[in-house]
Amino acid sequence: MKVGVFGLGSMGYGMATSLLKDGHQVWGFDLAQDQVDKFVAEGGLSAGLKEVAPNLDVVVIVVLNSSQTESVLFSADNGIVQYLSPLSTIIACATVAPEFARDMSKRCQQLNISYLDAPISGGAVKAAQGQLSIMASGRKETFEKVKPVLDSIAETVFELSEDAGVGSAMKAVNQLLAGVHIASMAEAMTFGMTQGIEPEKIVDVISKCAGSSWMFENRAPHIVDGDYSPRSAVDIWLKDLGIVLDIAKDSGFIAPMTATALEQFTEASQSGLGKEDDAAVAKVYAKKANIDLPS
Amino acid sequence: MKVGVFGLGSMGYGMATSLLKDGHQVWGFDLAQDQVDKFVAEGGLSAGLKEVAPNLDVVVIVVLNSSQTESVLFSADNGIVQYLSPLSTIIACATVAPEFARDMSKRCQQLNISYLDAPISGGAVKAAQGQLSIMASGRKETFEKVKPVLDSIAETVFELSEDAGVGSAMKAVNQLLAGVHIASMAEAMTFGMTQGIEPEKIVDVISKCAGSSWMFENRAPHIVDGDYSPRSAVDIWLKDLGIVLDIAKDSGFIAPMTATALEQFTEASQSGLGKEDDAAVAKVYAKKANIDLPS
Repeated sequence: MKVGVFGLGSMGYGMATSLLKDGHQVWGFDLAQDQVDKFVAEGGLSAGLKEVAPNLDVVVIVVLNSSQTESVLFSADNGIVQYLSPLSTIIACATVAPEFARDMSKRCQQLNISYLDAPISGGAVKAAQGQLSIMASGRKETFEKVKPVLDSIAETVFELSEDAGVGSAMKAVNQLLAGVHIASMAEAMTFGMTQGIEPEKIVDVISKCAGSSWMFENRAPHIVDGDYSPRSAVDIWLKDLGIVLDIAKDSGFIAPMTATALEQFTEASQSGLGKEDDAAVAKVYAKKANIDLPS
Repeated sequence: MKVGVFGLGSMGYGMATSLLKDGHQVWGFDLAQDQVDKFVAEGGLSAGLKEVAPNLDVVVIVVLNSSQTESVLFSADNGIVQYLSPLSTIIACATVAPEFARDMSKRCQQLNISYLDAPISGGAVKAAQGQLSIMASGRKETFEKVKPVLDSIAETVFELSEDAGVGSAMKAVNQLLAGVHIASMAEAMTFGMTQGIEPEKIVDVISKCAGSSWMFENRAPHIVDGDYSPRSAVDIWLKDLGIVLDIAKDSGFIAPMTATALEQFTEASQSGLGKEDDAAVAKVYAKKANIDLPS
């Protein structure tokens, strides 16, 4: 299919190259020209928005948040919907509030453009392998129409509902858990170190025990290696757990675990660690406990 | 080998029968006579402590806490160490503070009795299959001496240190994570339900996404099934997270995720849910959010 991918960060870039590998024609868009150039060198396409948009079957939006998503779609000067042909489809992958997804879906449908509320999970490695999980909601016929694109980027596509917003709600549930698990990983690793246990031993043992989590197994090794190059940054969690708490507040839901995890990430960000890998939340614990993490 | 198992609850009973299956001679001890009778009906042995103790190679203690462990070993009227032969070995499996484990080990060694600080992880099903994980510390020669017993009860034995206390410290790390993950599972499930997502869909999706944990996959189905028969009870977490926070306090370690999780379990216990399965912590969330859990 003819696909435009908006946002060539670590996730979007991997998804765009996965699409290329499966023979789709893929145009990449990103404010960072070097990412676009790199994508073109791998066989991707680049063109002016106005020229290419009318020919696109699918637009995949893999940006940071709701305001960027809205800007890609509807900004007055270069929002893409004004150039798209009706019957084209938006696949919106950013983590956003369900209410925002419902609003975007409605505005697209008014222009006869289909919309999938389609947040993703899995990280950059799985994105590059075309093996993401997609928590999606939208019309059944829309899923069918863009199946070749979904198959190229995802190992598992959950069709959760015909209504936009349900995909984003499920993503919020996932982020709640993922954020809490990263904070608890940091708490557990540094707690264990205060008891004289070597961090690599904690990883070995916990990975085989009931205390394990996807995030523990993925992030704790960053602490063992002293490697805080950002696969996913601390500041992402200020945004994502903030979204969870906003939704919770609107629904009268009290989320103490989420709130406590957000406090740890906020403290990390305020300590200047916002752009580091999210495992760096352990540095806040280590400083308070007066222990040295592996460097 | 000749083994005495103290505590025939769900974990101890499974361990005792796993030992029987591998051909050990196993004497079972429990305050509940019906558990002892059941064990004898499966081929286990029962005898007076004073008669059998001098012949035992190994004593496995699978009781609830430190005071029960100390009582099995040293109580004035029927503590077992006074009857054991030197060169026998204690395998102490309860979740206790590292300091307590060091004390027990020291007092046993003064009587020439070997001591393994050997907390377990895996639950009743794995106990019955002889596939527990053991986080153990103690002398190298002690591990070798009781290897046939360890092999019968565990799939994985971590030899963490020559010093008692390190096994218990690792167990505390595991319980920190496990307790936080159960509370966050309850928070996530009920949060998702307030957004109109069916609980079984949350389990399906999260199990395949980055928000998953061992505890999520194990406990969230209890909520879907509305089954709160206690595999592991709410009140266990008051004890175990209490131990974690006691150790943390002694080490000047601040553990906000653990403290917040403990608050949820405490609230559940105070609501009369202490003896229910630990997944019942979700009932506290559901009540506040005014939603109905599956029954």
